Amino acid sequence: MKPDFDTAFKEWARLLGPARARRDRETIDRYARSTLPKGTMPAGVLYPSTTEEVQAVVTIARQAGISLYPISRGKNWGYGDACAVTHGQVILDMSGMNHILEVNRELAYAVIEPGVTQKQLFDHLRDQDIPLWFDCTGSGPEASILGNTLERGFGHTPYGDHFYHSCGMEIVLGDGRVLRTGYGHYQEAKATHVFKWGIGPYLDGLFTQSSLGIVTGLGIWLMPKPDCFNMFFLSMPDDGDLPRMVDALRPLKLRGQVKSLVHIGNDLRIISSFQRYPWEESHGKTPLPEMLRKGLRAKGGFGAWNISGAIYGTKAEVRVARREIRKALRHLGRVRFVGPASLSLAQTVLGFLKSRGWAKPIQAKLGILIKVGGLLQGQPTDAFLYGTLWRIKGRTEPDSMDPLDNNAGLMWVSPIMPMTGEAAQDLVQQVSPIFLEYGFEPLITVSLITERAMVAVCTIAYDRDSPEETDRARQCYAELFQKIMRAGYAPYRASIASMAHLAEGSDVFWDVVHELKQVLDPGRIIARGRYDPHEARRPDKAETGG
Amino acid sequence: MKPDFDTAFKEWARLLGPARARRDRETIDRYARSTLPKGTMPAGVLYPSTTEEVQAVVTIARQAGISLYPISRGKNWGYGDACAVTHGQVILDMSGMNHILEVNRELAYAVIEPGVTQKQLFDHLRDQDIPLWFDCTGSGPEASILGNTLERGFGHTPYGDHFYHSCGMEIVLGDGRVLRTGYGHYQEAKATHVFKWGIGPYLDGLFTQSSLGIVTGLGIWLMPKPDCFNMFFLSMPDDGDLPRMVDALRPLKLRGQVKSLVHIGNDLRIISSFQRYPWEESHGKTPLPEMLRKGLRAKGGFGAWNISGAIYGTKAEVRVARREIRKALRHLGRVRFVGPASLSLAQTVLGFLKSRGWAKPIQAKLGILIKVGGLLQGQPTDAFLYGTLWRIKGRTEPDSMDPLDNNAGLMWVSPIMPMTGEAAQDLVQQVSPIFLEYGFEPLITVSLITERAMVAVCTIAYDRDSPEETDRARQCYAELFQKIMRAGYAPYRASIASMAHLAEGSDVFWDVVHELKQVLDPGRIIARGRYDPHEARRPDKAETGG
Repeated sequence: MKPDFDTAFKEWARLLGPARARRDRETIDRYARSTLPKGTMPAGVLYPSTTEEVQAVVTIARQAGISLYPISRGKNWGYGDACAVTHGQVILDMSGMNHILEVNRELAYAVIEPGVTQKQLFDHLRDQDIPLWFDCTGSGPEASILGNTLERGFGHTPYGDHFYHSCGMEIVLGDGRVLRTGYGHYQEAKATHVFKWGIGPYLDGLFTQSSLGIVTGLGIWLMPKPDCFNMFFLSMPDDGDLPRMVDALRPLKLRGQVKSLVHIGNDLRIISSFQRYPWEESHGKTPLPEMLRKGLRAKGGFGAWNISGAIYGTKAEVRVARREIRKALRHLGRVRFVGPASLSLAQTVLGFLKSRGWAKPIQAKLGILIKVGGLLQGQPTDAFLYGTLWRIKGRTEPDSMDPLDNNAGLMWVSPIMPMTGEAAQDLVQQVSPIFLEYGFEPLITVSLITERAMVAVCTIAYDRDSPEETDRARQCYAELFQKIMRAGYAPYRASIASMAHLAEGSDVFWDVVHELKQVLDPGRIIARGRYDPHEARRPDKAETGG
Repeated sequence: MKPDFDTAFKEWARLLGPARARRDRETIDRYARSTLPKGTMPAGVLYPSTTEEVQAVVTIARQAGISLYPISRGKNWGYGDACAVTHGQVILDMSGMNHILEVNRELAYAVIEPGVTQKQLFDHLRDQDIPLWFDCTGSGPEASILGNTLERGFGHTPYGDHFYHSCGMEIVLGDGRVLRTGYGHYQEAKATHVFKWGIGPYLDGLFTQSSLGIVTGLGIWLMPKPDCFNMFFLSMPDDGDLPRMVDALRPLKLRGQVKSLVHIGNDLRIISSFQRYPWEESHGKTPLPEMLRKGLRAKGGFGAWNISGAIYGTKAEVRVARREIRKALRHLGRVRFVGPASLSLAQTVLGFLKSRGWAKPIQAKLGILIKVGGLLQGQPTDAFLYGTLWRIKGRTEPDSMDPLDNNAGLMWVSPIMPMTGEAAQDLVQQVSPIFLEYGFEPLITVSLITERAMVAVCTIAYDRDSPEETDRARQCYAELFQKIMRAGYAPYRASIASMAHLAEGSDVFWDVVHELKQVLDPGRIIARGRYDPHEARRPDKAETGG
C-alpha cells in the first residue's frame, strides 16, 4: 500500500532529523511568501545536505507519490521566489548543500553545490587570492549560482550566459539514480568540467528550466581577471531613439568587439534603482505623470534610453576597443568611459559627500555607478534589489533588501527579440500602453544578451500591501504575457504564474517535454508543473493535509 | 499483422518513386564502402526530398519495425562514412534535401537542410555577395554542414564549435511527429534562429551524436567577414616541446585573445598532408624509420610540433593581437604571421613555380599554406583529404580525393583532454607506442578547440588493399580506443566501430540515453546503435533479406 503523507514525512524526519524536516506553521508561512500577487503554500520543507540524502528523500517521495520541489536558495525574485508552481508540494531546500567542491586555477573553473551563494564564491576567490572572476547577477549576495544557471539566467560580463558557461552536472533522477554528464560518468574522466558536450547525446539542457531532475552539482567556468576594465555609457534623449541604438550596437556584438552584455535601460528603470516613487510630488497619483517623469529624468541627467556595457582585456586591447565603440556609436552621441581610476575617484567623492550629508542625489548616482562597476567585475551586491521598493509607500529605508521582508511586489516579463531596432521598437510600443492602462510605469531594460538576441526585461513593481494594486498588477502581468506570446516574442524564462500558459500557440514541443518525464521521473514527483504546462494546467491535487 | 520488409519497401517505392527507393546490388555495394576495416551492408537506400516525405517514410518503417539510418551526405570519413552501425538497416540519404532556406544578412545566420554542402553554402554567400563566412571543416566541398554539426564536429575559425553555433532545429521523431526547437514551435516566433536556448528544457542536445530523431532543418550562425585576417605559425624542434607549447597557448585561449582553434600538428601529420609515404627511401619498411622521419622534417623545415592559428578583426585589433601572441609565445621561438598580402604573394609564386614545373616540394608547401589560409576564411577544400592517401602504394595521383574511390583506409581516435601540457604529454606518450607496435606512424594533431579543452586527433592511415595491414589497423584502433578510455580521455566523437564500447567504465549515463528512445523513438527504428552502446552491442538482427 502507498504510504500516506504523514508516514512519508515521518520517514523523512527519521532520515534527516526533525530540524531538517519541517512542517510547522511558521516554516510553511515563511516559504509561502512571494513577490508575486499569489504565492503557493508548501506542505513541508526538507533540508538535505548530501547527494545521498537527496536520493533517499526522492525514494521516499516516490513511494508515497508526493511532489518534491527543489530550490537552491529560493531567491527567484519576481518569478516565484521559493514557491512551488502549485500548492501542497514539499519544498526541497538545498541551501545546506553549499560546498565549493573545487576551484581549478589553471583551467579557470569551479565545481559547486546548489546552496553556494554569490557572496560565498566571491569571498572564496578573494580570500584565496585566486585571480578568477565569476559572473554574478543583480539578485543579491545570498542568491544561488547554480539555481540561476539552471534557470538560464544572465549576468553582465563576457561570461553572462550562465548556462553556456557551465560544464558537467550531477543530477538525481526521479527514480533515485545519479546521472553525471560531461564525461563525469566515466570512472577516470579527466575532462568533465572543461568540455561541455561530452560524448553521445548532450543531456544537460534537459535539466535547465525543467522538472526532469534535481541538480546537485555543477561545474562553472570562471573568467581570468583581466589586466584592465572599462565601463561605457551613452544616453539619448528621446523615446524614439531606441531602434538606432540597437542597430548601432549590433555590429559591435556580432563582431565580438563588445563581449559583455549591453543594457539599454529606460529612464524609469534607472530612476527606480535609487529612489522611491515620488508620492508627494505626484499627490499620490499613479502612473507617474509625464511631466514628473521628464523632471526626474532631467534632474538625474539621464536620457530616455541609457546604454551601459563594459570592455575587458590588456591595456592595449581596451584602448582599441574604446576606439571601435566610439566610432560605432559616434552618430548617436558621446560615449563616456569609466576606468578603474575614475571608479576609485567616485568612491572617494562618495565617501566625502556621505560624511557631510551633502548632495544626496549625486550620492545616489555615484553609489549606483560604483555598484554597477562592481557587478561588471563579478562583485555581488544587493543594491539592485532597491528597485523592488519603487512603489512601496512610507519614507523610511528598510533594514533588509530582501523583497519578501518588505512585502515588495515584483513581476518580470522577459521577452526575447532578434537584435534589431525594429523589434525593440515594436516590443516597447506593444507593452508600454499596457503598463499605463493598469496604472504602472513601464520599467524596461533592453539587454543585448548574446551576439544576435536581446531581452526586454519589463518590471511590474507594485505595492503588495494594497490588495487593489496587487490585483491590477496581476491583470497587467497576464495581459503583458499574452501580448508578447501572441506577438512572437516568447520569454527566455517564466514565472510560476505563467507555467500553465507556455503551451499556447505551440506545437509538439511541450508534449515531448511532458513525455520525457516518463523516463527521467516516472513517478512525476519532481517540481510538478515547472516548465511543464500540461502538468501546471491541472487543478492542484489535494495530496496533503498541509 | 506487421508488414514484411518487401511490403514496406514497395510502400516506400510507391511514396518516393522507384528511383528514390533503391535496393539494387550496385547501390547497396556503393553504400557499404568504408574507410574503416569493415563497413556495414545496408538493406536499401531511400532518398526523401521533404520533411513530409521523411515523416511518411518513418511511419512505414515503424509499422514494419525496420531500422532507418539517416545520413546527410555520408562523408563521415574515418568514423563510418555512409555506413550504419549494424548491417541490414535502410539508409535514409537526405542529400536531396538541400535547400538553403534562409540567409539573414542582418543577424548573420542561415537555415539549411541536411543535404546542403560546404561548397553550396560557400558559393551561395559568394554569389549573392553576402559578407558572412561559415566555418568549414577539412572534409571537403561535398560534406554536409548539418551532418557535421550533429556529430559536433569542429572547424577552424572562431565559429569552430559547430554545435554551439547552431540554433533552432526541426526534427522528425520516431513516431512521425515534427518537433521544432528554439522558439520554432510557437506560431509567430520571431527569435527561433537567434536565441539558442528557447524556453523550457533545452532539447537540441538530444539530437546530436544520437539515434533519437532525424534532424531535417537547422539554423547556423555565420561570422561577419572581418576587415583583417592573419594566420600565425610557430614550430619547435623536439618531441618534448609539446607541453610547453600548450601551457603557453592556454592563457591566450582563456583570455579570448585567440578565438580561432589552434592546431599543433606533429611533423608526420603535416608531411602526410602533401606527400605520400616514402616507400622507396624506406625500402617498403613500416613504420617510418626514425632517420627518414627526421630527414623529411628537416627537408620540409618543420618542427616536431607545429602551431597554426588565426586572428580576425579590424586592422588595429589584429595588430594588438599579434603583439599579445608574440609576447606570450616569445620564449618558445619566433612566431610567423601571414596576412592577406603574403597569402596572395604565395599564390603568385605558386602559379609561377607550377608553370615552370619547378621546386615541387616548395609548391606543395605553398599549396598547403594557401589551402589552410582558405579554410581559416571559410573556404572549403579537398586538399586535406590528401592525407588519406598516405599509405596507399603506387605513384600516380588519383583523379578523385574521395577516400572511398581510392579505397583509402582511415580511422580516427579523438580523445579530449584538459588544456594542460601535462595532459598533452601524457596522452602522446600513451598512444605513440601503440601506433609503432602495429607498424603505423603516430599522425597526431593536438587541437585547442575551446578555451579549456583540446582534442588529440590521432589518425591511422592504412592501405585498405592489404588485408594484413587492414587487420593490423583494426587491432591498433581497438587498442588505442581502449587506452584512451581507461586513461580518462574519452573521445569527443566515435566511429561506428566503437559505439558498442562507449559504456565501458561508465555509470547510468548510457542507460538513460537508451531509455530516452522510449519517448522519442518508441519503435526503436532510427539509427539503431548510433551512440547507444546497449543497442549497438546486440547481435545484428537479420531483419531483411538484403
